[in-house]
Amino acid sequence: MEKLPLHIRKMNDPFFEFNKTIIDATHDLVIAYKPNTAFYEALGTIGLHQLKLTCDYIKHTYPEVLIILDAKRADIGNTNQGYVTFAFDLLDADMITLHPYLGKEAMLPFLQRKDKGSIFLCKTSNTGSNEFQSLEVGNRPLYQHIAQEISEKWNENKNCLLVVGATYPNELKKVRELVGDMPILVPGIGAQGGDLQNTLDAGLTINHNGLIISSSREIIYAGNDSNFAEESRKKTEMLWTEMNTSSIPLH
Amino acid sequence: MEKLPLHIRKMNDPFFEFNKTIIDATHDLVIAYKPNTAFYEALGTIGLHQLKLTCDYIKHTYPEVLIILDAKRADIGNTNQGYVTFAFDLLDADMITLHPYLGKEAMLPFLQRKDKGSIFLCKTSNTGSNEFQSLEVGNRPLYQHIAQEISEKWNENKNCLLVVGATYPNELKKVRELVGDMPILVPGIGAQGGDLQNTLDAGLTINHNGLIISSSREIIYAGNDSNFAEESRKKTEMLWTEMNTSSIPLH
Repeated sequence: MEKLPLHIRKMNDPFFEFNKTIIDATHDLVIAYKPNTAFYEALGTIGLHQLKLTCDYIKHTYPEVLIILDAKRADIGNTNQGYVTFAFDLLDADMITLHPYLGKEAMLPFLQRKDKGSIFLCKTSNTGSNEFQSLEVGNRPLYQHIAQEISEKWNENKNCLLVVGATYPNELKKVRELVGDMPILVPGIGAQGGDLQNTLDAGLTINHNGLIISSSREIIYAGNDSNFAEESRKKTEMLWTEMNTSSIPLH
Repeated sequence: MEKLPLHIRKMNDPFFEFNKTIIDATHDLVIAYKPNTAFYEALGTIGLHQLKLTCDYIKHTYPEVLIILDAKRADIGNTNQGYVTFAFDLLDADMITLHPYLGKEAMLPFLQRKDKGSIFLCKTSNTGSNEFQSLEVGNRPLYQHIAQEISEKWNENKNCLLVVGATYPNELKKVRELVGDMPILVPGIGAQGGDLQNTLDAGLTINHNGLIISSSREIIYAGNDSNFAEESRKKTEMLWTEMNTSSIPLH
């Protein structure tokens, strides 16, 4: 709440109003919005209500823009059905982020939704992600093994994606080599310090696509007074321009 | 909803009323209740409201009984703070289940809550859990490496626990050897087919404790008419008696 502009805090659904204003100001520049469930759930039913208002608003007003529910869920199969309903039916998200640790058999309720995307954590953007993700399995790090298994065995419906943090461009390059043209969600540009050109060099497919690059805090907290959304648009335009004028890597 | 007794379905908060009736009938026989967030979130704000009513009811009416929020969360550090607030402050749960994949550094917001328990997935009860959890790392399976790392490096506040499914007693025995007297949450007794005596043989500490054994569907769906809670109590009593008359393993 303390990060919202003062005039927004006084509104009935301040988090929704904040989102709506930024969405209205940026929708023509983005492929997707990626709300993170943690921040809404911390507010209880009030937060969940505003998350649903936000998803409904995107779906009804800008149906060409995708919703990625950044929820990082995963349970056993029977239970995952609850999260499938939450993400794909209740909120009508197009994709959800997921942990791979329980294996394909547990994740079938997500994978069998051919109309929706399952985005599995592979190499996360945090500084301590090496602890388990880079353990050597066979002759390579665990995250590479997971990337290849998902690419070769989980992706029958062509609805799998991976997460690789922009803070690890070398690892992104390795994952791209393993998964062909599978789309990769890349958080960590902006506040977390990831570099855009390095990300493009490492992660684009041979057809120069295949990346969903996410910037969050740098954009939504670009300003904090009455014209905060204009500041957000400026930051988004800067990133958009940078993306579209970057040198294309040679493969 | 279709699994609830008919007379409960007509009430204002049917999931809470169902929980409350079973809690009233079983509270003297259990150490904890373990609601799973997936089933509540599938219902949106209505579900989250009834999850909160349930947690509030336990805390106020039976403060000696613990609440394990079976949420299987884990995000990067900044975001985990949202889930900490959700689980530990909003719902006042005593413990939460978590994925280990992002590493200790990301999980510090949970680990630093000395008053609360962090229960990390180690070897899950599902049939496909071997896919990644049993990959060989060094000379042993990944789940054993994770168990030992958490035991030796994450547990400074003595607030870590692990999940090992009752469906894997051999793996439970290995984990117990690695983690000393760390408590282990063991789901999978009952509907999932785990055997109680095998679990006790494999998982008890040398002092004959250290296990939280969870039975869910077998108890809550024991009956489905007006005296469903009596049936739930009978099933709970059976399991309690079985636990307390089982032969104690010799170490």
